[in-house]
Amino acid sequence: MDFKPFIRDIQDFPEVGIVFKDITPLLKDAQALNNASNSLYDLINSKKIDKVVGVDSRGFIFAPMLASKLNAGFVPIRKVGKLPYDTISESYDLEYGSDTLEMHNDSILKGEKVLVHDDVLATGGTAKAVCKLVENLGGEVVQCNFLIQLTFLHGASKLKGYDVKALLNY
Amino acid sequence: MDFKPFIRDIQDFPEVGIVFKDITPLLKDAQALNNASNSLYDLINSKKIDKVVGVDSRGFIFAPMLASKLNAGFVPIRKVGKLPYDTISESYDLEYGSDTLEMHNDSILKGEKVLVHDDVLATGGTAKAVCKLVENLGGEVVQCNFLIQLTFLHGASKLKGYDVKALLNY
Repeated sequence: MDFKPFIRDIQDFPEVGIVFKDITPLLKDAQALNNASNSLYDLINSKKIDKVVGVDSRGFIFAPMLASKLNAGFVPIRKVGKLPYDTISESYDLEYGSDTLEMHNDSILKGEKVLVHDDVLATGGTAKAVCKLVENLGGEVVQCNFLIQLTFLHGASKLKGYDVKALLNY
Repeated sequence: MDFKPFIRDIQDFPEVGIVFKDITPLLKDAQALNNASNSLYDLINSKKIDKVVGVDSRGFIFAPMLASKLNAGFVPIRKVGKLPYDTISESYDLEYGSDTLEMHNDSILKGEKVLVHDDVLATGGTAKAVCKLVENLGGEVVQCNFLIQLTFLHGASKLKGYDVKALLNY
């Protein structure tokens, strides 16, 4: 299935000069939603996965579906203060300033195989921080899995050494 | 399956005096995650559904899984300014102040059958606003579907006239 007709370009969102890839036309189409989750699953290529980690909030859309297909658990990664239990955290640089992500400290066991999923791979800062969180708990990142990769932002080079896969490349 | 052992009480979160129901132990357990999505699906009882609406961000976890099982599309509801395309909005009262939710104005077609899903039904303010958004686009709310209902907060009474179902009641 060709998914690109279901991705809508939004000019100047969230800021002037940025062309945002809006995935909601894909999500609202029953067949495209189903096929996209199957195709994301196919990218994993039968690797054994214990936990699927998804990044708040659009990463929450496909990560639990992938976890279900893989017979794995789902672990949410959120912004500071959103998770209720004891957390570990990781900060990363943005263009101006920085941001911090948190994960529950009981979410991944040592040696578990982990799939990292998010909707979009842009500069890779978020995904890199997520990999560090997983590894700080002793998990092994088996794949970084994205719906969309914006190749012109070179996020994959920040994720060197990881298996980076995306359904759609721009 | 008894899901309650997978729900963790967190005292004084997000504020002093509130006991928060933490669903992450359920999410990280592969079998509990799968069984919960199947049991949420069973609550719908074979009703025809065109779109499943999920509320940012924990509503995004099960709503797309339900959409996939129902062969329906998924529609995200988000806080102000998060959705990139043209939106409609609905405000609702909180204990102090108010909050506003948005939905893309092309997300639901007139006459479509809609399942509203969120993780927790508390006072019902959020769910009521979501129902209004759906109806403002001409959709028909077939069921309001929750993982957890805090019955002592009487949210169901704010949703009178709707079919309110929850997997776990406290």
